[in-house]
Amino acid sequence: MSLQVLNRFYKFTFKFHQLKPLLAVQYQEFASVAVKGKERNLLKSGEIIKFSNDFIQESKRYKSSVQASVKWGSKKSKRNVRLQLKDMTTPEMEEQLAPLRALVLEQGNLVRELKANGAAEIDVKKAVAELKLRKKALEDKELELTPNVVNFDRSKMEDLLKRRFFYDQSFAIYGGITGQYDFGPMGCALKSNILSLWRQFFSLEEQMLEVDCSILTPEPVLKASGHVDRFADLMVKDVKTGECFRLDHLIKNALEKLSKEKTATAELKAECEDIVIKLDGMNKQEMADILQKFNIKSPLTGNDLTEPIEFNLMFATQIGPTGLVKGFLRPETAQGIFVNFKRLLEFNQGKLPFAVAQIGNSFRNEISPRSGLIRVREFTMAEIEHFCDPAQKDHPKFELVANTMMTLYSACNQMDGKSAQKLSIGEAVKTGLVANETLGYYMARIHQFLLTIGIKPECLRFRQHMGNEMAHYACDCWDAECLTSYGWVECVGCADRSAYDLSQHMQATGVRLVAEKRLPAPKTVEVSEIVPNKQTLGKTFKKDAKAITDALAKLSLEDIKSVEQQLNDSKEYTLNVAEGATFKLTPDTISVKHSSKTVHVEEIIPSVVEPSFGIGRIMYALLEQNFLCRDGDEQRCYFTLPSVVAPLKCSILPLSNNAEFQPFTRQLSQALTKAELSHKVDDSSGSIGRRYARTDEIAIPFGITVDFDTLQEPHTVTLRDRNSMKQVRVDMSEVIDVVKNLSTGKLQWSQVLEKYPLFEQQEATK
Amino acid sequence: MSLQVLNRFYKFTFKFHQLKPLLAVQYQEFASVAVKGKERNLLKSGEIIKFSNDFIQESKRYKSSVQASVKWGSKKSKRNVRLQLKDMTTPEMEEQLAPLRALVLEQGNLVRELKANGAAEIDVKKAVAELKLRKKALEDKELELTPNVVNFDRSKMEDLLKRRFFYDQSFAIYGGITGQYDFGPMGCALKSNILSLWRQFFSLEEQMLEVDCSILTPEPVLKASGHVDRFADLMVKDVKTGECFRLDHLIKNALEKLSKEKTATAELKAECEDIVIKLDGMNKQEMADILQKFNIKSPLTGNDLTEPIEFNLMFATQIGPTGLVKGFLRPETAQGIFVNFKRLLEFNQGKLPFAVAQIGNSFRNEISPRSGLIRVREFTMAEIEHFCDPAQKDHPKFELVANTMMTLYSACNQMDGKSAQKLSIGEAVKTGLVANETLGYYMARIHQFLLTIGIKPECLRFRQHMGNEMAHYACDCWDAECLTSYGWVECVGCADRSAYDLSQHMQATGVRLVAEKRLPAPKTVEVSEIVPNKQTLGKTFKKDAKAITDALAKLSLEDIKSVEQQLNDSKEYTLNVAEGATFKLTPDTISVKHSSKTVHVEEIIPSVVEPSFGIGRIMYALLEQNFLCRDGDEQRCYFTLPSVVAPLKCSILPLSNNAEFQPFTRQLSQALTKAELSHKVDDSSGSIGRRYARTDEIAIPFGITVDFDTLQEPHTVTLRDRNSMKQVRVDMSEVIDVVKNLSTGKLQWSQVLEKYPLFEQQEATK
Repeated sequence: MSLQVLNRFYKFTFKFHQLKPLLAVQYQEFASVAVKGKERNLLKSGEIIKFSNDFIQESKRYKSSVQASVKWGSKKSKRNVRLQLKDMTTPEMEEQLAPLRALVLEQGNLVRELKANGAAEIDVKKAVAELKLRKKALEDKELELTPNVVNFDRSKMEDLLKRRFFYDQSFAIYGGITGQYDFGPMGCALKSNILSLWRQFFSLEEQMLEVDCSILTPEPVLKASGHVDRFADLMVKDVKTGECFRLDHLIKNALEKLSKEKTATAELKAECEDIVIKLDGMNKQEMADILQKFNIKSPLTGNDLTEPIEFNLMFATQIGPTGLVKGFLRPETAQGIFVNFKRLLEFNQGKLPFAVAQIGNSFRNEISPRSGLIRVREFTMAEIEHFCDPAQKDHPKFELVANTMMTLYSACNQMDGKSAQKLSIGEAVKTGLVANETLGYYMARIHQFLLTIGIKPECLRFRQHMGNEMAHYACDCWDAECLTSYGWVECVGCADRSAYDLSQHMQATGVRLVAEKRLPAPKTVEVSEIVPNKQTLGKTFKKDAKAITDALAKLSLEDIKSVEQQLNDSKEYTLNVAEGATFKLTPDTISVKHSSKTVHVEEIIPSVVEPSFGIGRIMYALLEQNFLCRDGDEQRCYFTLPSVVAPLKCSILPLSNNAEFQPFTRQLSQALTKAELSHKVDDSSGSIGRRYARTDEIAIPFGITVDFDTLQEPHTVTLRDRNSMKQVRVDMSEVIDVVKNLSTGKLQWSQVLEKYPLFEQQEATK
Repeated sequence: MSLQVLNRFYKFTFKFHQLKPLLAVQYQEFASVAVKGKERNLLKSGEIIKFSNDFIQESKRYKSSVQASVKWGSKKSKRNVRLQLKDMTTPEMEEQLAPLRALVLEQGNLVRELKANGAAEIDVKKAVAELKLRKKALEDKELELTPNVVNFDRSKMEDLLKRRFFYDQSFAIYGGITGQYDFGPMGCALKSNILSLWRQFFSLEEQMLEVDCSILTPEPVLKASGHVDRFADLMVKDVKTGECFRLDHLIKNALEKLSKEKTATAELKAECEDIVIKLDGMNKQEMADILQKFNIKSPLTGNDLTEPIEFNLMFATQIGPTGLVKGFLRPETAQGIFVNFKRLLEFNQGKLPFAVAQIGNSFRNEISPRSGLIRVREFTMAEIEHFCDPAQKDHPKFELVANTMMTLYSACNQMDGKSAQKLSIGEAVKTGLVANETLGYYMARIHQFLLTIGIKPECLRFRQHMGNEMAHYACDCWDAECLTSYGWVECVGCADRSAYDLSQHMQATGVRLVAEKRLPAPKTVEVSEIVPNKQTLGKTFKKDAKAITDALAKLSLEDIKSVEQQLNDSKEYTLNVAEGATFKLTPDTISVKHSSKTVHVEEIIPSVVEPSFGIGRIMYALLEQNFLCRDGDEQRCYFTLPSVVAPLKCSILPLSNNAEFQPFTRQLSQALTKAELSHKVDDSSGSIGRRYARTDEIAIPFGITVDFDTLQEPHTVTLRDRNSMKQVRVDMSEVIDVVKNLSTGKLQWSQVLEKYPLFEQQEATK
């Protein structure tokens, strides 16, 4: 995943749900206090009671009530959102949207014009920032006008996720760490099922080479990839308390507050607004100047703030005992694939194209994580790097997906204030909207995968990066975005990264990360080499000789020509080595040799197409889009997760704790285990209805009930479908196969309804 | 996994394969130079050649030849080992072993006697160290006498593992990092298959709760678990170069060298020997004294060394931007489970027993990693924590495994110089050799699992920890050890850890990590509580009031009695709070309240039985035990991995690149994909025999060949078995099912041989 995409992966949602500054700060302070194990200083009152320990529990409850109101990143603990459940806007809606669309179009044209005229960078940035704001206003309006089909209550879902331990904050008994989550049994099973399916869908189906690379990464690797220098956010610290603030957020909040004050003049307001618009593209000095100009202090204490500090978002550590080898926890899995390129090419017998997959954890030291699973410090990614000949980006299987209808939100439509459009991927590639078949193929496969695991098609779109968003080396980039209550969230990036990464590592190591391509006909090429005279070189430069030899080896053909020229003309060539030193080389230390040779192959640096999946974000979107409450009973909530990813496939519920049911329950459980079907036996007390509701909460799609009729021959049980709550009566000898076929999608519930008799209500007694 | 077990996990193999000190040091130096990206200073000669880049390649080759000779931890790059392929020793062997057995028995009895008489700790330690040496001598002799059935050539296997990219050193193009490995496509698939099977075998079969917890762990958690204070090795540094040496290794090497010098007196030799024996149990000061007494210098430079430094083996980092929240990469996955105990108990509806599983990466900053996958800095573990009532360690499914015959090497037999013995686990639990049914059940399941993935029964034993090896809190601990060319390597630990971990976290957090157990009859208990008078307490102690309240809450019942006594007697109680401060409390600030209440349940801290799998070690043992070369052709090596874990299940080889074969190849590949069978199509040129050999190298168990007969109706193909190299002719319509059934173990090759006609040799042409 590119730096830029990674950055956006996390910054994306911020705009939708800024906490009130104070609340954010309080929370941050709370979190840092909490991890020091001092969570009890939040306790306002309490009894010191031995044994019952109530006072500690009380403080925990207090704490979690504080957390509940803020930890998921929204200032509201409960809110209803509108999910866009229709493809198209109606004519009435269009009427209201028209002025907003016009505003976007106007600004889009301005950006185009500025770029065409080569306007100053800051003016382009300002225009782009304004364009984004107008786009946002349009998008908000569109969502607002969409019929309010689903009353999604985020706090209700979050409560369920915590209560049934899908996932929850890590190390909570120690006060917790923000931005880290532990997956409980249901979350872990869901994640594991998604990853299994991903492996089958991509690795197996496309015969990819899957690798599993190290997390701890030495500095030079991430220096070459650009992460050491550029993977940073600016922050300032309170000079007294050491409290940290992300600089862009701080300035924005401070200026917005300032311009809302009664004394604010129209000029001041305009200036503040102007700055906020430009903020996105400002550098460190520009932001520092603003801090000084407006005399911005810590919003929490009023104390002075430090100068802006570039805070690198990677977790640093030392590898080995000397303390000299600096390393980082990888911020993405992709680099592990690039540094293994030669081995992988060799594994593929030297042939292009081939794709490499990797599933693994990456880490990012957020300044202030929020929005639950969407912005975290530790996360699982699944990445694919598809290496291909830059001149041949067609895909042999493209025709198989060409008819896939997708919602595409092109850069052009974004600039013009138009909506996303429905289009087949074949059409999109043919018209050049999507850069090439390989990119299009992966987009279609991503689309298919997301629908298979349960993302709703009407809540999925592919948004193209606008020119200014795209990393400079990328040709084309599309994000799969899922609609959630946080807005459209980028869940999968799909970029054509050209030869950027391999080139960087090649430059840094001197190892040629290239593939060989057979030429149509052999050709003769001139070869120029610099030959060092090791003896005189060593004598003259002693320990520097090696650095010189290394630097010479990196010279390009052009450079070598220049060396030869200078050696001829002035009998001297001045070499700059990497560390900044210069050396004067004379013809007795080096010479230039020319030869010619016949070559049959040419070396090419492959292009890379990279689909990159954020598994936590996909899980969050999936859970949200599948969360429902029963009609007329808002307390009975459940998840409609497809059985292929549902944490457990089946429940077994004996009607009561009657001992006669036990052998049947045990027999069913053993048979399900043998059929490799994960399941849960709930033989606790509680009515059957209450227990069904509990299995619905954890998304179990099918339930088998053992009742008094089961005891009679032929032994039968009831089989219940979670979504429809309908039940049928099935012979015990058949029920395992039915569940297996339902779980793997070989059988539909409607077919089961046709084949087996409907069942209405269990008798509570014989 | 316990600290002690983890420590041994890594220390274990050292004794078997110490590098020559100089070589070890050279390698360490080399590695640290290499990661700084200066690998080319090892180049002794070379041409600077532009384009062909030979000189860089040459330096890489030089480097990898240096690495090849040392990196796998043996001083020999090639050696034959004897695998113990028989259960029992012969009478002739016993004759030779008898004196060694007697020596062990003598020493074992001495240890018992010393312990019984309460001898000084250092004397017991010395005796135990001597006992271990005698055990080692016995074990070496046993292995030596075992018929040399298998000529295992480690360097040949390592070459194959590198060449076909099962795994290799991470970041090699940057010079590499010792102790970190990247798994290539074959290694990754093997690992993933082992983990899938593990999930099915343990999580699904036993209905465990699987979780997935954070890797980054805040300091207080690992402080409580003991890792911050005790998870360290002692080291010294060269005062000038900063080179690090593990202290025990350094002293051992220095003294062994010293006692081999010609001038060494008998006294000196005896003293050195004595110290080496005692080394294992020495503390920091004792080792520092030895450094001084013998004036030990850096073996590399002769420079002075620093005082011993405790080097904590965890990777440290900072969480969040303030730099104030210290964290570590977890050294084991277990702690994530313990800190989630309350949520997991609740998920299990408050009932014991239940088991929790976790698969994930852990990290350990080795001072000098070696022995390939056996001792690394980043590794995958699969751990189970089985929580149960300490008074009820029977297991409902124990009878299902009771007859499992296992090789058990009891602590007693180790002390007595006897061999391991074959015994059913039922017998072992009945006689009390294995502490309880739950521990025994897991040992049997571990045994079954290891055999299923392909560990040879004759190369697997369970070794019981001797009293002095076991963590103080553990009741009983058995390690599953696999025989490799490095000796017996601990691959799975299985320990009864009693209530240690939960107690530690309860103590540190004040959160009660307990389960409730219904009493046979309700009982009345006296409750004593300390009630703080918050008003006066706050007035008197200001900001310290909270620390006081916290400290009071942690007092035991005994403490509370003492408080009451002192308040009554002297109207004052002096409280020590955690930070070391003391406060005088008077009756106006606190009082003690008594009451009685009827309770129906009692709180118990569950016991934990912990099976802990080191996946990398298991993989290494598995690969080694399944590595063979064809009779009469030492160059044709292959792995006999069972199909259930083999990286790919099937190969498809068209006999030649004849275009007519292509539709059949494609059709077979699609059908295998549909059947979810991983496979590889090898349509490269090269004879069919050469291509079979290539598929054998990567352990593909079955191969389908498309030949000229395939083109005729009825379309048939050949199916080949890797191990026997036999082929049969099968109809294309049937072959997928046959491969599927073979891969899942539903069908044996012998059955295939009976059903289908044997096939001898393809025709190379029509």
